[in-house]
Amino acid sequence: MSTQMTFGSDNHAGIVPEVLAAIAEANVGHALGYGADEWTVRAEAVLGETFGDAAYALCLTGTGSNVVALSLALRGWESVLTARGAHIDLDEAGAPEHITGSKIETIATPDGRLTPQLLEGALRSNEQHHVVQRVVSITQSTECGTAYAPAAVQELADWAHAHDMLLHVDGARLCNAAAHHGCGLAEVASGADIISFGLTKNGAMGAEVVVAINPTLRAPIQNARKQATQLQSKLRFVAVQVTALLTDDRWLAHATHANAMALRLAVGISDAAGVSIVHPVEANAVFAVLPLERIVALSEQHQFYIWDATNNVARLMTAWDTTPADVDALIAAICG
Amino acid sequence: MSTQMTFGSDNHAGIVPEVLAAIAEANVGHALGYGADEWTVRAEAVLGETFGDAAYALCLTGTGSNVVALSLALRGWESVLTARGAHIDLDEAGAPEHITGSKIETIATPDGRLTPQLLEGALRSNEQHHVVQRVVSITQSTECGTAYAPAAVQELADWAHAHDMLLHVDGARLCNAAAHHGCGLAEVASGADIISFGLTKNGAMGAEVVVAINPTLRAPIQNARKQATQLQSKLRFVAVQVTALLTDDRWLAHATHANAMALRLAVGISDAAGVSIVHPVEANAVFAVLPLERIVALSEQHQFYIWDATNNVARLMTAWDTTPADVDALIAAICG
Amino acid sequence: MSTQMTFGSDNHAGIVPEVLAAIAEANVGHALGYGADEWTVRAEAVLGETFGDAAYALCLTGTGSNVVALSLALRGWESVLTARGAHIDLDEAGAPEHITGSKIETIATPDGRLTPQLLEGALRSNEQHHVVQRVVSITQSTECGTAYAPAAVQELADWAHAHDMLLHVDGARLCNAAAHHGCGLAEVASGADIISFGLTKNGAMGAEVVVAINPTLRAPIQNARKQATQLQSKLRFVAVQVTALLTDDRWLAHATHANAMALRLAVGISDAAGVSIVHPVEANAVFAVLPLERIVALSEQHQFYIWDATNNVARLMTAWDTTPADVDALIAAICG
Amino acid sequence: MSTQMTFGSDNHAGIVPEVLAAIAEANVGHALGYGADEWTVRAEAVLGETFGDAAYALCLTGTGSNVVALSLALRGWESVLTARGAHIDLDEAGAPEHITGSKIETIATPDGRLTPQLLEGALRSNEQHHVVQRVVSITQSTECGTAYAPAAVQELADWAHAHDMLLHVDGARLCNAAAHHGCGLAEVASGADIISFGLTKNGAMGAEVVVAINPTLRAPIQNARKQATQLQSKLRFVAVQVTALLTDDRWLAHATHANAMALRLAVGISDAAGVSIVHPVEANAVFAVLPLERIVALSEQHQFYIWDATNNVARLMTAWDTTPADVDALIAAICG
Repeated sequence: MSTQMTFGSDNHAGIVPEVLAAIAEANVGHALGYGADEWTVRAEAVLGETFGDAAYALCLTGTGSNVVALSLALRGWESVLTARGAHIDLDEAGAPEHITGSKIETIATPDGRLTPQLLEGALRSNEQHHVVQRVVSITQSTECGTAYAPAAVQELADWAHAHDMLLHVDGARLCNAAAHHGCGLAEVASGADIISFGLTKNGAMGAEVVVAINPTLRAPIQNARKQATQLQSKLRFVAVQVTALLTDDRWLAHATHANAMALRLAVGISDAAGVSIVHPVEANAVFAVLPLERIVALSEQHQFYIWDATNNVARLMTAWDTTPADVDALIAAICG
Repeated sequence: MSTQMTFGSDNHAGIVPEVLAAIAEANVGHALGYGADEWTVRAEAVLGETFGDAAYALCLTGTGSNVVALSLALRGWESVLTARGAHIDLDEAGAPEHITGSKIETIATPDGRLTPQLLEGALRSNEQHHVVQRVVSITQSTECGTAYAPAAVQELADWAHAHDMLLHVDGARLCNAAAHHGCGLAEVASGADIISFGLTKNGAMGAEVVVAINPTLRAPIQNARKQATQLQSKLRFVAVQVTALLTDDRWLAHATHANAMALRLAVGISDAAGVSIVHPVEANAVFAVLPLERIVALSEQHQFYIWDATNNVARLMTAWDTTPADVDALIAAICG
Repeated sequence: MSTQMTFGSDNHAGIVPEVLAAIAEANVGHALGYGADEWTVRAEAVLGETFGDAAYALCLTGTGSNVVALSLALRGWESVLTARGAHIDLDEAGAPEHITGSKIETIATPDGRLTPQLLEGALRSNEQHHVVQRVVSITQSTECGTAYAPAAVQELADWAHAHDMLLHVDGARLCNAAAHHGCGLAEVASGADIISFGLTKNGAMGAEVVVAINPTLRAPIQNARKQATQLQSKLRFVAVQVTALLTDDRWLAHATHANAMALRLAVGISDAAGVSIVHPVEANAVFAVLPLERIVALSEQHQFYIWDATNNVARLMTAWDTTPADVDALIAAICG
Repeated sequence: MSTQMTFGSDNHAGIVPEVLAAIAEANVGHALGYGADEWTVRAEAVLGETFGDAAYALCLTGTGSNVVALSLALRGWESVLTARGAHIDLDEAGAPEHITGSKIETIATPDGRLTPQLLEGALRSNEQHHVVQRVVSITQSTECGTAYAPAAVQELADWAHAHDMLLHVDGARLCNAAAHHGCGLAEVASGADIISFGLTKNGAMGAEVVVAINPTLRAPIQNARKQATQLQSKLRFVAVQVTALLTDDRWLAHATHANAMALRLAVGISDAAGVSIVHPVEANAVFAVLPLERIVALSEQHQFYIWDATNNVARLMTAWDTTPADVDALIAAICG
């Protein structure tokens, strides 16, 4: 079957070898289900070394971990403030509203990043006709391929807390943000009350983790996970994926590589005729205007998405397995 | 880590080798995500050979596939009739009510099986104060280890349709029911409008399928799956699990084996002092009264559940990897 | 149009004159909407004299006030324990599950009353697969026309609190219970964390009040009311209904009268051939077995409900406007 | 208590005399509850003369009737497209998302009115990650005091139907729109599949009607109303409000008057220093920039809302009981 390299999504990549090996290694005999096994204990210990004191819930999909996280933070009459076009707004088929029962309010941003100033503009008076604005949700790194600096995240956390709100970080690509800023995973989510920490895009088969840092959010995390349909019975096979990627900083190696490939790509095409880079390249995505006459053919050949057809903007994503040769081939095709 | 054989759940077993091999084999290069890959196409073709014309959605957890199936069949003011203690009633942390927004009405049964007579007793007048009774949900095989005969399922389907209702089959152990009755998977869900077809307990790592047979339920199946957080990005790795188990009737071999181990166990203990078998053994579970003075120690040693502490009833489950020697050891311990 | 007296429901009665007069009296000029008016302030003051320190939300329907109360007490993965056949279980079209997102668990009772012993039997282990049992909901007076004594309510409250649960009282007929036990409205809900206090059946046009006593439930009461669609814009016209009925113990006069009419009816028919009284008559309802050969004709003539067709049980309800002559006419018809 | 005339909301006005008289007149003896009474039959007949063949559900609040209407039109994974700042978006405490389980997508408009062009810009590709865009919801007259012409509504209906969508009209002030355009209530909602028809702002105490025109939406209207907590037990008292206002075109007289008062006000202040009219005055609201130095004092004295504090925009609303003298007094105060 098809094995061609694509630039469509980091989801197109497969499983990193160490994860697959860990799954095979854990496939020995019986183990208690639903997390009452030694592999899950180990994964939570490794997560504790990474994120510190918190409650953890291993999940299966990014939408799932976002829903679990938000359901812990929200009552039905409360709302989430997030960037327009955030994954929870646009790409989760309405799951956040449907399962949490809460409203999502969106704010237009220039590059996917919220700021205190943008949030101020969305504040509403607190009266009974309105939802109670309760959660600020940011994506790290963002849907535009930019990454908040740790201080910027902390600033948003401080703003949220000063307004009696909580900060949620959708960290489907938290690894890429940390790699870009040269800091730890916890640091790049500084001040967050709850994190959806994703490893699938980093090379797992399917492993996401809800990290509940704020003590008031922790108690019902397992019930919330089960109710959101995210509790795998044979949980050891999710746990070992987490342990494998957090061991020996493998997550960092994969993210650093993917980021480097994106930067190589951006540098390689930035001077080409009809090409311009739309957003700072701070993770593993390049948003670029491509020549009108070739963008469709290129997108079909290299299977990337035309993000904004009106302005000929393509999204070019790299992954843990993108090679310099793959990148150079795409550069050549674009610059052709 | 622990590899001791247990009788606690078919979830305690690991992954059958052919499934693990299929995952490894599919781990080659890039593939489009979310089902737009060749492995998913193949899995749906194999499912089509098994269940016929239907819409399919590959899912991750049993609760997830139940929620997707029910959400396709229900409006908010409609209800589900099911056996008291069914998985959707008791063991899904309220996910069905929470995500579908609909009520579950439960009916007491002697052995987990609903009948038209039991359903008649639960019928209510159709008035605006009541929910509209819309779905009959049965578990095949049941939570009591019994399995509906194909004709019994068809009879329930006919009853449902005659009352303007739909039949949902929670087939987390559909394979065991088919193996017991010596018929096909579709046959053991005869007349069903929608099926949650489980393969995890049959030896998959985590693979469940919603099978929407009734044409009026099919169109939004992908949106419903996504909204229920059940859409895996790297879906090829779920698809190959389905294909692996449906190929060469492997599902049948695993289920037949597990059922045979349960029967061996039941036969082996049925005459022992203080032991009585509670329900007919028609799948891979034995419900047995065990001697009061030893049931706790046995449950700890062999890690099975005491299902009904008041009456000393244990649930003893076998799996694809339970060996005759494992069974004989438990028989010896119980008959001790 | 039809003005015949019926025994079908206390909802069949109209508006007591003092309520209608109060509405007319408040219909003067402009007033701020949604509760920011002087009439609402006065109603809340009167409620404060009745129930003490609490947060109040004036609502429009009994289902509405139940939903608001339960939504304040529940998270999505939590459940309500209630008597089978309670209004929230049977007669609200699934609104509690749908709007709170939480499960309702029902317990069979002999006469509509829960007891600590019955609740003990419904307790489940607290594990992630289960909902978290969080609220005990009782109806005062019950759907069977019985009324908990204040000490019995307090005992249930103590039981709930000892199990980390809350007590909700559906007081659609709280007035009738208080009248029966000769005590105050607060006393007949002793220990409750939250009350749905109904006045419509007492003679209002449509006025129900959520009384949030437990301080942890109070803050979002207005948002919860608005989200449950229960906030009337011209709220003064609801407020004056509350004030009118709580002034000069009018509620007590109406409830005492209705109860007395029920007792007169029960006494009058209890010795008749083929008649037996099913439940103690402690409010304004009589549940009675009536002669098989006449029950249908009687129900059509006097417009009461046949509650249990299998056993010829009728529900005969009295209201604030039922006269002794009305009762005597029904007695004569039944004994005839 | 306070009887001062305000310009804050048409909700500040009381009950028109003919409605109060109708309530008093219906308060005779017993009537079956929940709509099985002669007054409800009559109200539905009058509604049928107004809107034609449809299913009707009498409701209590505007939020309630919107939720009932939308819940009939939507599945959980579908969405509503509406103007940013529409009542369902901003002023219903998240009830539409919470109770329907569906997403609301908002579109910025210059004057509260959607157009096919604006809708085109919000269309998304139909894929499983997205919600299915299913309902266009417009407010007639709009939150900006403008009113769609019948042809404009029909054009939106045609657009919606061409895109496999439905048109919902939030007609909280449908009467004002019809009065402005000199046409019937049905005409000013031309092509709509479902209407929330409000009479409270027209002078009722509290009466709203869901009008389900599209035959595919009708069947469960009563269950949806009950589940949304909107079913009044003593429904005759809601029914007579509807009948009273629809009889002898009283609705038209009230709306025509309120509109005329708004126009009188707009004309009277439009030339004053520092004043400008923001939106066309096509209903009973005037949006006007008022002088910075006096807007706060004026708003407190005449109890109107400062709609946009940044730009000194006030919302000045008239009602059925606003007199020319009231208007002239406000004109004098503003121009002062």
